[in-house]
Amino acid sequence: MINGERTIQRPMRWGMVGGGRTGQVGYKHRTGALRDGTYQLLAGAFDLDAARGRDFGMKLGVAHDRCYTTYQDLIAGEKDREDGVDVVSVATPNFTHFEITKALLEAGIHVICEKPLFFTVDECEIVAKLAAEKNLIVGVTYGFTGHPLVHQMAAMVAKGVLGDIRIVDMQYTHGFNAGDDDSADAVAWRTNPATAGSTFVLGDIGTHLYYLSEVVLPHMKIEKLLCDRKAFIPSRAPLEDHATVLMHYDNGARGHLWVSSVNAGNMGSQRYRFVGSKASVEWSDAHPDQLVYQVQGEPESIMHHGMPYLENESLAADRMGALHTEGLGDSWSNIYLWIAQAIDAKFRGDETFLKTHHYPGIVAGTEGVRWLENCVRSADAGAAWVEYA
Amino acid sequence: MINGERTIQRPMRWGMVGGGRTGQVGYKHRTGALRDGTYQLLAGAFDLDAARGRDFGMKLGVAHDRCYTTYQDLIAGEKDREDGVDVVSVATPNFTHFEITKALLEAGIHVICEKPLFFTVDECEIVAKLAAEKNLIVGVTYGFTGHPLVHQMAAMVAKGVLGDIRIVDMQYTHGFNAGDDDSADAVAWRTNPATAGSTFVLGDIGTHLYYLSEVVLPHMKIEKLLCDRKAFIPSRAPLEDHATVLMHYDNGARGHLWVSSVNAGNMGSQRYRFVGSKASVEWSDAHPDQLVYQVQGEPESIMHHGMPYLENESLAADRMGALHTEGLGDSWSNIYLWIAQAIDAKFRGDETFLKTHHYPGIVAGTEGVRWLENCVRSADAGAAWVEYA
Amino acid sequence: MINGERTIQRPMRWGMVGGGRTGQVGYKHRTGALRDGTYQLLAGAFDLDAARGRDFGMKLGVAHDRCYTTYQDLIAGEKDREDGVDVVSVATPNFTHFEITKALLEAGIHVICEKPLFFTVDECEIVAKLAAEKNLIVGVTYGFTGHPLVHQMAAMVAKGVLGDIRIVDMQYTHGFNAGDDDSADAVAWRTNPATAGSTFVLGDIGTHLYYLSEVVLPHMKIEKLLCDRKAFIPSRAPLEDHATVLMHYDNGARGHLWVSSVNAGNMGSQRYRFVGSKASVEWSDAHPDQLVYQVQGEPESIMHHGMPYLENESLAADRMGALHTEGLGDSWSNIYLWIAQAIDAKFRGDETFLKTHHYPGIVAGTEGVRWLENCVRSADAGAAWVEYA
Amino acid sequence: MINGERTIQRPMRWGMVGGGRTGQVGYKHRTGALRDGTYQLLAGAFDLDAARGRDFGMKLGVAHDRCYTTYQDLIAGEKDREDGVDVVSVATPNFTHFEITKALLEAGIHVICEKPLFFTVDECEIVAKLAAEKNLIVGVTYGFTGHPLVHQMAAMVAKGVLGDIRIVDMQYTHGFNAGDDDSADAVAWRTNPATAGSTFVLGDIGTHLYYLSEVVLPHMKIEKLLCDRKAFIPSRAPLEDHATVLMHYDNGARGHLWVSSVNAGNMGSQRYRFVGSKASVEWSDAHPDQLVYQVQGEPESIMHHGMPYLENESLAADRMGALHTEGLGDSWSNIYLWIAQAIDAKFRGDETFLKTHHYPGIVAGTEGVRWLENCVRSADAGAAWVEYA
Repeated sequence: MINGERTIQRPMRWGMVGGGRTGQVGYKHRTGALRDGTYQLLAGAFDLDAARGRDFGMKLGVAHDRCYTTYQDLIAGEKDREDGVDVVSVATPNFTHFEITKALLEAGIHVICEKPLFFTVDECEIVAKLAAEKNLIVGVTYGFTGHPLVHQMAAMVAKGVLGDIRIVDMQYTHGFNAGDDDSADAVAWRTNPATAGSTFVLGDIGTHLYYLSEVVLPHMKIEKLLCDRKAFIPSRAPLEDHATVLMHYDNGARGHLWVSSVNAGNMGSQRYRFVGSKASVEWSDAHPDQLVYQVQGEPESIMHHGMPYLENESLAADRMGALHTEGLGDSWSNIYLWIAQAIDAKFRGDETFLKTHHYPGIVAGTEGVRWLENCVRSADAGAAWVEYA
Repeated sequence: MINGERTIQRPMRWGMVGGGRTGQVGYKHRTGALRDGTYQLLAGAFDLDAARGRDFGMKLGVAHDRCYTTYQDLIAGEKDREDGVDVVSVATPNFTHFEITKALLEAGIHVICEKPLFFTVDECEIVAKLAAEKNLIVGVTYGFTGHPLVHQMAAMVAKGVLGDIRIVDMQYTHGFNAGDDDSADAVAWRTNPATAGSTFVLGDIGTHLYYLSEVVLPHMKIEKLLCDRKAFIPSRAPLEDHATVLMHYDNGARGHLWVSSVNAGNMGSQRYRFVGSKASVEWSDAHPDQLVYQVQGEPESIMHHGMPYLENESLAADRMGALHTEGLGDSWSNIYLWIAQAIDAKFRGDETFLKTHHYPGIVAGTEGVRWLENCVRSADAGAAWVEYA
Repeated sequence: MINGERTIQRPMRWGMVGGGRTGQVGYKHRTGALRDGTYQLLAGAFDLDAARGRDFGMKLGVAHDRCYTTYQDLIAGEKDREDGVDVVSVATPNFTHFEITKALLEAGIHVICEKPLFFTVDECEIVAKLAAEKNLIVGVTYGFTGHPLVHQMAAMVAKGVLGDIRIVDMQYTHGFNAGDDDSADAVAWRTNPATAGSTFVLGDIGTHLYYLSEVVLPHMKIEKLLCDRKAFIPSRAPLEDHATVLMHYDNGARGHLWVSSVNAGNMGSQRYRFVGSKASVEWSDAHPDQLVYQVQGEPESIMHHGMPYLENESLAADRMGALHTEGLGDSWSNIYLWIAQAIDAKFRGDETFLKTHHYPGIVAGTEGVRWLENCVRSADAGAAWVEYA
Repeated sequence: MINGERTIQRPMRWGMVGGGRTGQVGYKHRTGALRDGTYQLLAGAFDLDAARGRDFGMKLGVAHDRCYTTYQDLIAGEKDREDGVDVVSVATPNFTHFEITKALLEAGIHVICEKPLFFTVDECEIVAKLAAEKNLIVGVTYGFTGHPLVHQMAAMVAKGVLGDIRIVDMQYTHGFNAGDDDSADAVAWRTNPATAGSTFVLGDIGTHLYYLSEVVLPHMKIEKLLCDRKAFIPSRAPLEDHATVLMHYDNGARGHLWVSSVNAGNMGSQRYRFVGSKASVEWSDAHPDQLVYQVQGEPESIMHHGMPYLENESLAADRMGALHTEGLGDSWSNIYLWIAQAIDAKFRGDETFLKTHHYPGIVAGTEGVRWLENCVRSADAGAAWVEYA
């Protein structure tokens, strides 16, 4: 159980690019990082509006001279300071991830980047190579996988409690884009291929489904896939506001998932069900503290976070203890902590630790982009089956 | 609201073929029919085991001489009695539906048949023609569509409350066949193509999904469809114990559904969600008295059966009144009542009534089989898209 | 599992007093009784409005000459017929229960009466004595205790699965009387002491809580009790539309319950929780097919009706089988069946059967009235503790 | 919405007494405080075991020389430092709250203290007087009232959306003390009157119910009260592990609540229902992001945190935004923020701000203790009604 005791040598000196006052995602990064003294926010290029960004940064406690206007300025200002930032989070629209990440790595700065990581697997591989050369960490904020019960599912699968996995059933839908007004900034860039990349909801929310399933089912690989996507608001085409994906796995399992932002009125519908030959587990981020575990022919059971009957992997990630709810902020704190522990291992030169340490890194980011590329390839071929590549 | 007052001229004189002591489905027919004096059980060929069938029939109150061994005997015994049965329910394995139905119709007896109706659309059309010639009703026991809130959804869709329908999301899964022991009678015939037809779960439970969606969305037609099916227990092949179906509708809507009998541990997961441009409704037969209604941007609302704010179509089908739960038996009672009203209209020669009277009849049965044929055609082509035909 | 096979010698010849077209409760009796050929509705004095009552009765299939205007007429007409009714249900306002029941018994007719049975324990004892003399059954329609999972709870308690019972937590509330318009017939008589007796919600809904707790906890007796009641709509005083009751049991357990008809907006809140030293069970009539079973320190478990892991007592009362919902009508059918079995045992002179046969009879009815008397005595003493008497 | 921008002049210099490695509550304080740069943890007397406390403090980032053994040492070490702590949190067993709080205030240090605040109202009044003289804040960690939807309920009540409040129904129960092993430290001191005061569960969890009801219903005062308490584990007597409390309010409303730590198997059962003449609201800390709002005669509605339809008071306290769960840590962060804003107002001499600023302070702490005193007085008089004093 996490109680705030430091597991790294010193707090990370941390900066942000993006995540300014007018966006929603910045606070998730900050509330995830700024807990337990894991990170100290020392620099930022929060906003393309220089004055607003500086005012905002100072209200976050960043010194005046470390509130930068552009990421280039931030790199220039920080890279040679003795107390310059160790790591920078990139919370900007998708199309900027690649260039900012590359520039930060080249300046010797670790990176934590929003998903979907980049536009292409090629870009991911370029960055992976660069990070390896520079001996730097690239973390990816798949923010839902810090929940303790996600790791309970993974541990149960690993121990064979479910038997052979047969069916993967996933959904992440909401209705916030049911209407056709895409003028708000956060929607405008997400629905424009130039700024969002080749997908809207597949990348924006579908990658969470895919990554979480990888965490729970690391042994299973997709062999072929079919993606059927549609823009119910026509101006969003060629991007999609709705998609279903069918997947065949190498162990014979079948997967299906649904992503949408036009599921009118739907709240909190990120749902996962993993069905094995003996039993199933089902979890939703809407009630992240509960895990439904069902053995065929027995009463259903509901597990609660923080309880002694859980696997160690789950209890280790617990923060509030049984009876006391955890929220998305607690999950983000775990993600940020695990990335900090990876960076700290780099500081210590401890590659052994890194070999088994779980955190969403460059591989996870790359695989998320690969999954998107396959989805788009299928969809663009008329929702045809494609061999996973 | 239904209070038991007779809406037909006299109780139907009713017989059963199948539905004996060792099966599960017979009681659903009887508890559906034998309420409010809508039907009187007067004859039956309940069981292939003659002695057991007779003993059983007599314990149901059927006279000794009207407990028959075969459906042929039943027809022979009943057709010329002055008080012979008006209508017979067919609750036998799928492969016998066609011949029994045909024989009953030829003998001038109305029929109520289990789903899936027959093996092929061709058979359906033969029976439809015969029934028309004989001026007889063929009802189909899609037993879930008698629930009042199903008709609330239909009325809301018809009034445009949801806006344009965009997405259809359906599921009917359980885990009772997660293991590989198919020796029980009810499983053995369902997993054998000779007795079940060309599908297992698609026909056994998937047709419920399809028919209910037709009731709610009568204006929408499928244009193309893709069905991916699999037998996780290999001995069930070529039939399936798991399938996903994607559907494109003529109004541009997208549908997806999941059926399975290997969803280990899952209970009560018949779920329907109809998403419109303005709002969505969601209903599950596990809690049939509640309807979730969600308008984007407003608090979710939960409607309860029997409440005055519901549409008349829903209130008309209510039996227990608000606060008091209805179950599957009440839904079956409505189905049986609506079929009795159709037969009664035939007695009265009231074709006007029949033009607008809702009940699951030969058309519904035929469309269910058509949907199965399309699913199988797609699946057998390698889960390929097929034009709906 | 109940499949409709007759467990009695012949259907009961049945009549009703009350339960006419304008009331809500009549159909619950009829849908409970008229299933499986357990009862045949042959006579009735359904309505104080003679014409309406006759028209209604005939629409229920009752012969013209057996549709009576008053219960006196019914008794006069039926008592000497060879095919006269065996048993009559009394579904009239409370103040008439005693005189009608007495008259029926005196005429040699078995009785099934609505709750609360009578106004006083003295009346109950008079009737109990009369019924014993006449060798007749008095059943009481505590309609919720036919649900199979109620008997699962009872069996688990009896086997010691919960350990020593410590806490009883019960609630039956709704909001249908939150407003102050009591003019509807069904409300008017319930809020008038002359017609309702000394309580409104305590008798109308609270007795269901008390009786169900007796079924589950037959070994526990109340030692003292405190009842705090109030009429939020002043015109209902001295009757109450809200009450809380605290109870001390002879085994040291503590109970508390809440009844109200002004719990604005509340639907389906009949809830029971029985807490033992080892585990607890929780059940609600809103989802009668589920039973929550919680062992301290283990995952919660949810049991579903009809599943093989349940106790025989529960499975014996099941009608629809696992996966298929049961509703209040199914519960009433069990109550009516169990009462029919009791009457049938009287026919057969089988007192041995009656010694262990479970059904809500005159003792249950008497104890319900006793509980009300104690509640009123406490409330009228200023919500003071009273020794249970 | 809270996004981390500083609303106070500078982070509070913060220390802790108690909350060490072996306890559970310390991390709730730290994760609540150490977010958004609201507090900096600079000193602590975390543990009576000096070495363990120092090791722990240093792992929290506290300097070696500011890890103290006793609160007296902490005061001595901090009071004259220029950078000495502004405020200290007291997270120790109940019996030490009074002396530590008094000593801190006398040293000119603001205090944040666990509930129940002290043993007696007299002690509360001594401290209130001292705090007033010293111009210092005393905050109380009623940690559940930072949830945004608590303030939605308060705003709805204040606007009259529910009509006149009639019924208050509250529950906080769990089963972690269903067994009789009280040897764990956290249980041992809570079940001993010398260290816990005159109550166990009433003070430990019941005060949360009482305070939250005050936040939602500030206009209602208790006139009389009855408390029935019991120790199901006899060694806990005269303290209680179970209690029910009935309350009569000055506006005629009725309240009842249940607290227990022997509710075997129960998880997450902190529940509140406020019933008005027009509508009701219901909220549980187990799913703090949802608020059930029920208007009699309309569909139920479920409100979700962070949605624009909520009142400003609720949205102002939101951290994660709609769709994204908040947990108990987020609620604690709000409580700590609001207390910091109160202290900051003291720094600024802004008594006007303090007049309307909401936070749980000395008055809330005092009223909690007063409620406990009344409960104990009633319970000790044999669960008798007492005038609230």
